[in-house]
Amino acid sequence: MSLIENLEWRHAVKAFDPNKKVSKADIEKIIEAARLAPTSSGLQQFRLILVSDQEIKEKLVPGALNPDSMRDCSHIMVFAAWDNYTAERIDKVYDYTTDERELPRGRFSSYTDKLKEIYLDLPAEVNFAHTSRQTYIALGLALAQAAELKIDTCPAEGFDNQVVDEVLGLQEMGLKSVSLIYIGYSDEEKDWVKPLKKVRIPREEFVIDMHS
Amino acid sequence: MSLIENLEWRHAVKAFDPNKKVSKADIEKIIEAARLAPTSSGLQQFRLILVSDQEIKEKLVPGALNPDSMRDCSHIMVFAAWDNYTAERIDKVYDYTTDERELPRGRFSSYTDKLKEIYLDLPAEVNFAHTSRQTYIALGLALAQAAELKIDTCPAEGFDNQVVDEVLGLQEMGLKSVSLIYIGYSDEEKDWVKPLKKVRIPREEFVIDMHS
Repeated sequence: MSLIENLEWRHAVKAFDPNKKVSKADIEKIIEAARLAPTSSGLQQFRLILVSDQEIKEKLVPGALNPDSMRDCSHIMVFAAWDNYTAERIDKVYDYTTDERELPRGRFSSYTDKLKEIYLDLPAEVNFAHTSRQTYIALGLALAQAAELKIDTCPAEGFDNQVVDEVLGLQEMGLKSVSLIYIGYSDEEKDWVKPLKKVRIPREEFVIDMHS
Repeated sequence: MSLIENLEWRHAVKAFDPNKKVSKADIEKIIEAARLAPTSSGLQQFRLILVSDQEIKEKLVPGALNPDSMRDCSHIMVFAAWDNYTAERIDKVYDYTTDERELPRGRFSSYTDKLKEIYLDLPAEVNFAHTSRQTYIALGLALAQAAELKIDTCPAEGFDNQVVDEVLGLQEMGLKSVSLIYIGYSDEEKDWVKPLKKVRIPREEFVIDMHS
């Protein structure tokens, strides 16, 4: 099926069947789509935290808008972005890139110098706003990949970031939670969104065609 | 081809062939993938501005990090987000949704009331940060759709937002530019990124598997 057909197929699932688990192989494909996501300057300035353990899921519940989804889904994939840009983080990515391409380290130093000039003087929260945005590219691609596999998902910003950051120990990793995806299989009886028509604003309203 | 294969195929193209144009049918497919993107609360809080006119492209050049791509690509797709949340904008989306689903207007009013409670008291820049993020979901899906069609792209944040907003008259539409995609066909001789190995950090580093 095409990407468009997969996007038409998917919806934000409101109830998961707690007895159906997603296979390890399928989870790895969803991860791979997120890993291949393009990011600003190729920095991949975020990480995925994968949770399937029931005990940890329970600890993430306080403050969640969909506590049942938190509990009943098969896997939770948390998108957590760098809390700031640092010279070390930028260099690490570019050193790895030059190594992988068998180029001398520092080959892109005029570019990384420019990145450092832009980011390192900015407040952490401004940089975090930028790293956060990049996670949404991967979030979208992960949802599309799950749809290709006919796996149900619900993306969510409705959770307590402080709770999630603490339970997952994100601060120590220099990360802050941004969003998450509940992954699993829909409970068809309880998932009230499933029978509803998918609605998007019409193409004519969504796109502005500019002509001089 | 699968989504993962398409994501492996694509790269951020550094030079476009000015003589090769993307067909209208293909552009519509890319638009459709972006239109189907999920967004926070289903608000689709952004619009696409489509530019192929050479005169307008030229006006967007000042401040662009890749002026040649701006000029030589076939189409520019600008992602512009709502500059703020308003009660009218929220209601308009939900009125349309209930109409399309043949439900009484106001069917989701307890939900939209909650959204208004959350957003309407926040400063415009905080709300714009939120609307901006949503555009990246659609950006990623548009890139994936182009890759499925073997159309080249380069996503970009490197342009002068003020110039773009002014040239496209976005303020009058309650929108602000966030990012854009250059769409076209690569100039294989000048596109120095094409022969390079695609690099992403290893899966083991990208994912943190949480166990209690």
